[in-house]
Amino acid sequence: MKSGLHFLIAARECEIGDLEQLALTGELVGLIGQLVHALQRERGLSNLFLGSRGTRFAQARDQQLLQCDAAALELRRHFDAMDTQGTAVRNGARLFGRIATVLQALDALPALRQEIAVQTVTPPAATAAFVRLVAGLLQVVFEAADSATDPQISRALVALFNFMQGKEFAGQERAFGGACFAEGHLESGRAQQWLELIESQERCFRIALDFSDAAIQAAWRGAVDTRTQAELERLRRIGCTLRADGLLDPELAQVWYDCCTQRIDAMRAVEELLAAQLLQLCASRIAKARDELRNHEAIRDALVRTASAADTGEPVPNYGPHLERSIIDLVQEQARRLQQMADELDTVRASLNERKIIERAKGLLMATRKLSEADAHKMLRQTAMNQNRKLLDVAQSVLALSDYL
Amino acid sequence: MKSGLHFLIAARECEIGDLEQLALTGELVGLIGQLVHALQRERGLSNLFLGSRGTRFAQARDQQLLQCDAAALELRRHFDAMDTQGTAVRNGARLFGRIATVLQALDALPALRQEIAVQTVTPPAATAAFVRLVAGLLQVVFEAADSATDPQISRALVALFNFMQGKEFAGQERAFGGACFAEGHLESGRAQQWLELIESQERCFRIALDFSDAAIQAAWRGAVDTRTQAELERLRRIGCTLRADGLLDPELAQVWYDCCTQRIDAMRAVEELLAAQLLQLCASRIAKARDELRNHEAIRDALVRTASAADTGEPVPNYGPHLERSIIDLVQEQARRLQQMADELDTVRASLNERKIIERAKGLLMATRKLSEADAHKMLRQTAMNQNRKLLDVAQSVLALSDYL
Repeated sequence: MKSGLHFLIAARECEIGDLEQLALTGELVGLIGQLVHALQRERGLSNLFLGSRGTRFAQARDQQLLQCDAAALELRRHFDAMDTQGTAVRNGARLFGRIATVLQALDALPALRQEIAVQTVTPPAATAAFVRLVAGLLQVVFEAADSATDPQISRALVALFNFMQGKEFAGQERAFGGACFAEGHLESGRAQQWLELIESQERCFRIALDFSDAAIQAAWRGAVDTRTQAELERLRRIGCTLRADGLLDPELAQVWYDCCTQRIDAMRAVEELLAAQLLQLCASRIAKARDELRNHEAIRDALVRTASAADTGEPVPNYGPHLERSIIDLVQEQARRLQQMADELDTVRASLNERKIIERAKGLLMATRKLSEADAHKMLRQTAMNQNRKLLDVAQSVLALSDYL
Repeated sequence: MKSGLHFLIAARECEIGDLEQLALTGELVGLIGQLVHALQRERGLSNLFLGSRGTRFAQARDQQLLQCDAAALELRRHFDAMDTQGTAVRNGARLFGRIATVLQALDALPALRQEIAVQTVTPPAATAAFVRLVAGLLQVVFEAADSATDPQISRALVALFNFMQGKEFAGQERAFGGACFAEGHLESGRAQQWLELIESQERCFRIALDFSDAAIQAAWRGAVDTRTQAELERLRRIGCTLRADGLLDPELAQVWYDCCTQRIDAMRAVEELLAAQLLQLCASRIAKARDELRNHEAIRDALVRTASAADTGEPVPNYGPHLERSIIDLVQEQARRLQQMADELDTVRASLNERKIIERAKGLLMATRKLSEADAHKMLRQTAMNQNRKLLDVAQSVLALSDYL
């Protein structure tokens, strides 16, 4: 009959399997970060190109397409190498479903690029298509964070996901502002949209830094030099402050793009640090779990030796009661540790759950009120501001009152 | 390169793997229910035996030990047959850890029984040991419910878990009241404990029925005949209403035990219905997922035929655009379905999370105030009653203020 020790060892092995899975996911997340970064640039350049009615930025855009293709190819190679046969992948049903969506969006990219090249698409429509593609990629990262069973790794994934999401809002701001400058004027209502992109970034970075260690926090503080930051704020002020005639200097488009790009590239460096930290964390957790597994196995082997010595009538080594005590302690310690891990995990995941609740409330508003995602978000935010409540609280109220909507 | 369709199929396969895992877990839960039922009887009879100072119930207890051993053997056989090698078991780290704890507690059972036989243990201490063992078994069911990824199955598991937990409180009441009657008197303070066991039962059954369908609700309403129910309430009144002299009629011990047992056996029948429903649900969900998988595979095969026809220069069948459209629809429908399932799952799991939060708050109070579990629970409940708040709210406040404790 299998003993408690047997299941203790099996539990450890499963834990190691989960951690190895997470390490693979960490690599996947790194490749996604790379592709997202390239797509963010392509989106920005596409908007500059469209905003200038095709008169500028064509060459820079063409070069960027090649970079995107290279990053997409690397990601596709990783997808190809994934073990989709077995059911070894934790959370496979949802992860693979998200990947299917991403692949479909990537397949549709050439058609979008063609439309941009011949300018049969507006900057907002082109931006929206890129935003959807990037959102699909980030959703893969979210699923990874959501399936992590180790609280430390879950923390790292929550930090990384929020950082990537914040960087994406920064990328959207670059594309949005780029189109405005390149068009040479700001349509009314756009200033508000611009401000929301700034706020969304800041919210995400706040969460990301809350879940990061001092090294990352320091890297983030030092990432963007003060001159770039000041230049960005100056351009934001020019862009967002609506002049009576609504005109903007088109020459600022390039300045804006370069300034934003410098900042976003600095973010990418921090993101790479976060991703490297994640992989390192996986490796050290795996090494530790393997150590503990070896300890358990040593105890099991000693027990087997004791038993076989007893069978053959040899003098039984005298660590019987000591060993038994060890096993009882081990099982109890493991139970405590599992409970502690589960508790920590719940705490870390609370931030993911908040996001889920807000997303669900948005989805509900989109369905019942036939709103776009942006409008649903705006409606929630507006209610929160009017009632001086947190966005999460408003989202929860919306879900609680779903029958009335 | 792997296509979106490839990952769609892989996602389905993972889903089926998860469902098959859940079906196995369903069997495990059934065996646990059987052992718990036997242990609950053994606990009740042990308390009657101890309460009567060994003068009565010895034979009934001896017979019950055999039934327990048979149920334990069946469960151990299931454990032995479990695939602990691969990392195929979802949530293996936690599930196996819980099983290790259960096996250890089962190994300690003979020593406890010996103490009961020679009456070197008090009824409360014996009860506490059985309560811990049953709690460990129910924790395995909880892990199963917690790891379910299908909202319908998660619902069924939440219902079953809460029902089993409610039945366990009923079993604790039987053992508790049995000892009181057999001892022939009620110590002060015990009436409150008795009332809490009644309330805890009712809370669990309320949740269980909320998550059950009409058939189960009807079965539960018809399970306990009104005569038994009336008799139970009469005995509860006699037991809980402290007479000035605190004396109870020891002859009522057998009446009490039989009445409770009739009720608990009726619960067991409903529990078996719930367990059967769970298995049926798993089977039908698996059949449905397999159907859908076959559809996906048919589309994939049609695509392969189209491609190879094109390669060999044969006339290409003309369902190309139609097929491509189907795949895009499939991926989008799958994405919607996954999102919907995730949302439903969150809703169902909210009730599990409530339990986790209350357990964590209790754990915190136990650690910081050096309280027993029962006292920590009482403290939370008392605060909730005094402040007219929900237990969950109080537990959340406790966790939020953990730094102050």
